[in-house]
Amino acid sequence: MIEEASKENIDRRIQMAADAYQFLKNTTVKERAAFMNTVADQIEALGEELLTTAHTETSLPLARLTGEKARTAGQWRSYAKAVATGIYAEPRIDLAQPDKQKGDLRKYNVGIGPVVVFGASNFPFAFSTAGGDTASAIGAGCPVIVKAHPAHPKVSQLMADTITAAVKEFGWPEGIFSHITGTSYDIGAYLVQHQEIRAVAFTGSFTGGKALFDMAHHRKDPIPVFAEMGSINPVFALPDLLENRAEAFAKEYLSSLTLGVGQFCTNPGVCIALKGEALDRFIDTLKNGIQETVPAKMLHKGIYESFEKHKTIAAEQPEVYILATADTEIDEWQGGAMVIETSAQNFIKNPVLSEEVFGPFGIIVTCETQQEMMEIAQQLKGQLTITIAATDEDARNNLTLINLLKDKCGRLLFNGMPTGVEVVYAMHHGGPFPSTTDSRFTSVGPDAVRRFIRPVSFQNWPDEFLPEELKNENPLQISRIVDGEVNSESLKLQTT
Amino acid sequence: MIEEASKENIDRRIQMAADAYQFLKNTTVKERAAFMNTVADQIEALGEELLTTAHTETSLPLARLTGEKARTAGQWRSYAKAVATGIYAEPRIDLAQPDKQKGDLRKYNVGIGPVVVFGASNFPFAFSTAGGDTASAIGAGCPVIVKAHPAHPKVSQLMADTITAAVKEFGWPEGIFSHITGTSYDIGAYLVQHQEIRAVAFTGSFTGGKALFDMAHHRKDPIPVFAEMGSINPVFALPDLLENRAEAFAKEYLSSLTLGVGQFCTNPGVCIALKGEALDRFIDTLKNGIQETVPAKMLHKGIYESFEKHKTIAAEQPEVYILATADTEIDEWQGGAMVIETSAQNFIKNPVLSEEVFGPFGIIVTCETQQEMMEIAQQLKGQLTITIAATDEDARNNLTLINLLKDKCGRLLFNGMPTGVEVVYAMHHGGPFPSTTDSRFTSVGPDAVRRFIRPVSFQNWPDEFLPEELKNENPLQISRIVDGEVNSESLKLQTT
Repeated sequence: MIEEASKENIDRRIQMAADAYQFLKNTTVKERAAFMNTVADQIEALGEELLTTAHTETSLPLARLTGEKARTAGQWRSYAKAVATGIYAEPRIDLAQPDKQKGDLRKYNVGIGPVVVFGASNFPFAFSTAGGDTASAIGAGCPVIVKAHPAHPKVSQLMADTITAAVKEFGWPEGIFSHITGTSYDIGAYLVQHQEIRAVAFTGSFTGGKALFDMAHHRKDPIPVFAEMGSINPVFALPDLLENRAEAFAKEYLSSLTLGVGQFCTNPGVCIALKGEALDRFIDTLKNGIQETVPAKMLHKGIYESFEKHKTIAAEQPEVYILATADTEIDEWQGGAMVIETSAQNFIKNPVLSEEVFGPFGIIVTCETQQEMMEIAQQLKGQLTITIAATDEDARNNLTLINLLKDKCGRLLFNGMPTGVEVVYAMHHGGPFPSTTDSRFTSVGPDAVRRFIRPVSFQNWPDEFLPEELKNENPLQISRIVDGEVNSESLKLQTT
Repeated sequence: MIEEASKENIDRRIQMAADAYQFLKNTTVKERAAFMNTVADQIEALGEELLTTAHTETSLPLARLTGEKARTAGQWRSYAKAVATGIYAEPRIDLAQPDKQKGDLRKYNVGIGPVVVFGASNFPFAFSTAGGDTASAIGAGCPVIVKAHPAHPKVSQLMADTITAAVKEFGWPEGIFSHITGTSYDIGAYLVQHQEIRAVAFTGSFTGGKALFDMAHHRKDPIPVFAEMGSINPVFALPDLLENRAEAFAKEYLSSLTLGVGQFCTNPGVCIALKGEALDRFIDTLKNGIQETVPAKMLHKGIYESFEKHKTIAAEQPEVYILATADTEIDEWQGGAMVIETSAQNFIKNPVLSEEVFGPFGIIVTCETQQEMMEIAQQLKGQLTITIAATDEDARNNLTLINLLKDKCGRLLFNGMPTGVEVVYAMHHGGPFPSTTDSRFTSVGPDAVRRFIRPVSFQNWPDEFLPEELKNENPLQISRIVDGEVNSESLKLQTT
C-alpha cells in the first residue's frame, strides 16, 4: 500500500527545498562532488536487500540489477568528478580595463533552484529515485524532490533513505532531498505547478511527459521540463551490409529488440531495408530467432497490458503482415515478442506504425527503392537514436541520407545496436521532439548536469563577496576563461 | 512605405534556409568564423550612408550610432573568435575500450536549424538585422531569417545587403540569410509557427515576446524562443553608501536613468532605499538634476506614446508622489524625464508600479525598515539586472538580501549602473522570467551562440565520415574532452 502524501506534507517539503537551495547554491563544486561520492559509496554498500527487493518489485533478473546498481553508483561518481572540475560552473572573468568604461565582470553557473524528478519504472536504480536526474540536479546545486515511482515503492524508499543519510552525514539541510509518495497524478501536477519549483526531469510516456511540459509552460513563470518520452529508434539497413551480413545482423537486431523484454527507451522498434534476397535472409533468421525467444515477465501489469494492447493495434493495421511471434506459452505479464512487416508506402501513410510499442516488438519496413528510404527519413519524427547498418561503401553511397538523419536523432550509430546507453561525456541521450521535450540536453552522462544551471554575472564585486569559483585566488584551482583565454592560475591583481 | 512580404516569398525563403542548413551545419567552426570576420569587415566598411540613414530613422545621435556600429562589428568578430576555438562545438570523445561492450562514442554540437530573428528598435545595429542574434545563430551553424524592424527599414536593408554580399563572396547558399519585411504581426506569427523553423530570438516588449513564446510552445513540435522582454532593473541603495555618497550616487543614477532618453532595457527604473536624511539628500540632488535634463526625441512615435501613457498611469497610482519632471518644453516625440516616490508597502501591494515604463522614468521606493527591503526583494519578479549600491560594510550587513537577489536577476552589480552591456564572455544578459523567457541563456556576449546548438552523438563511426571537429587527427586543432580529460592533440589510434 503506497501512502498518498498530504498537501501539507508536500508544501512543507517544498518549503524545505527552497530553504535548502539558499544553502546548496553557495556550496562549491568540490563540496558537492564530495557529497556525491558519499552517496555513491552508500549505494555501493547497499547489500542483498536492495537487489532482492528490486527483483521482487520489478521482475528484473538479479544479474541485470547488480549491473544497474553499479552503474547507478558510477553515475554519482562520474558526475561528481565532472562537477569538481568546474566544467559546469563555467567561470568566466573579464577583468577591468583602464581604457574601458566598464569594470570587472565575472560569471558562473548556479543551480536553477528546487527540481522535481519523476523516475522511470524500467530502471529502478539508474533512472529512478537515486538515478541520473537526482545526481545531476544535486551536482548542479539544486535540491531535489523525487515523486516516487509507484511500481517499485520499497526500492525507492531504500534509495531515498540512502541519500537522506548522506545529507545527515554532511550536516546539510534536510530539504536538499525529499521523497514524495503517492499514486495520484494530482501530486505530480501540484509539484510541477508550485511556484518554488524551478525545473522538472521526467522519464516515461509521451502522454505523461507532454502533460507536465504543458503545465510548466502555462505557469505564471514558465519553467523547463526535461522529459524523455520514448522513441522507435529506427535502424536503416543498407544494401551492401545486408548482402554481406544478413544473418549476423538479424541476430544482433533480434537480441537488441528482445533484450530486457524490450523494455528500453532505445529499443530498435523499426528496421528499414530494401526488398530482395538479402532482406529475405534477414527475415528468415529473425523469424527463427523470435520463436526461440525465452519469455520473461514485464515490469508491471500496466506495462504488460499496454504492450499487448499496442502490439495488437499495430498488427491489425491494414497491409501489415505478422512475420513471427514468440510461440512459447504466455504466462502472467509475460510480453511475447512479435515482428511484423509492412511496405514503405504503408509505413509512411499510417502514423500508427510510427508510434512506440514499449516491449519486444519490431516492424520491418520494406522499400522498393532507395528513394523510399529517403522519404521515410524525411518524415521521421525526432528519435533518441537512429542506427545506420552499413558497410563503408554503403555510407559513401548514402551521404545525403545520413546527413538528413543527423537532424532526426540525438545519437547516430554506425552498426551496433542502440540499447546500452554508456554513461560518458560523449553520450547524448536526448533527441528532437517528441522523443524528448528538449533536444539540447542529455539525461545520461555528466552533461546531464547542464539541465539544472543558469548563469549569474557579478559586476564590480569585491573579492570578499564573490563565490569561490570566481575569486582572484582561484582557491578551487579550476579552469576558468579569463579575458577570453583558458586559465587555471590565481590572478595577481593590484588592489584598488 | 514598407513592403509586406508575400506568403509565397516567405515560404520560398524558409525553404532556402532549410536547404542552406544542410550546407551550414557541415561547415567547420573555422569556416564559420572566417565568414563572420568578413561580415565584421564589411560592416566596418559601411560609411556615412549607414550612420546618417540610422540617425534619420531613429533620432539617435551620430556619436552613439558610431559607437554602436563599432560594437556591432566587434560582436561579429568576438563571436567569431570564440566559435573558432570550438568552445561551443564542445567536442567530447570517449574511445572504445577493450574491456567495455560499447565502442567509440563522439559528440559535438551542431546548429539547431533555421532561426528567426526579431530585432529591437532601440539598437538599430547591435540588436537588429546584423546584431548579436544573427551573428550568434550563424556562428552556431544556423541560417537566419530576419523579420526586419519597421522602425528602421532602410538601415535594416543596408545591413541585410551587407550580410548577403558576404554570403555571395563566400559562395555559400543564399538561404543562409533572409530579410523579410512587413508591418503585419501575422508575418512574425507565420514564421515562428513554420515547421522548418527551429528557434526564435526576440528583443522587445513582454506582450510581443510572450505571444511568440506561447505560439512556439503550441506547435506540433515545440521550439525554443529566446525573448528578452525588458526589466525594471532595481537599485538597492544601502544605508552606509547613501550616508557617504548620496549626492554622487544621485548623479550616477540620474545619468543612467536618462541616458539615451531612457531607451535601454537595462534602464534602472526603481531605486529602493531607507527613509532618512541621506535619502533626502539623494532626492534633492535627483530633483535638481531632472530639471536640467536636456530633452531628446525618442526612437519612434509608438515608443513615445507608450512612454507618455505608462508614465502617466504610474504617476496617477494612489499614494504616489511626483518628485520631479523635466520642465523643459516637450517637442514632438520628446520623452520628458520623471521621477516619482512611493512607500515600500505601496510598491509591494500595487503591481502596476513593478511594470516597466520604457523611457526616462524612475520610482524611488522608501522603506521604513531593512525588513521592508527584504520584502521587496522577496516579491520581485525576474530582472535582467539588480544593482546593490553599497559600501563593503553595507554588503557585510546584508548578505541574506544579496544572496536572495542573486535568484532574481541575470547580472548583479556592486555599485556602478546597469546601462552599458559589455560584449564579453562574462556578460549574462538574460534574467529569470519575465525579463526573458529563458534565464539559462544570454543574448549578449559570445555565449549567446549557445542558444542555437544541440548535441549529436556518433557511435562507432569510421573516421572518414566524422565531422572535422571529431576526427582522430583533430585537424582544427581545437580543445576536446577525450576520455574525460581536456586534450588538444591528434589521437594516435590503431586502425581496427
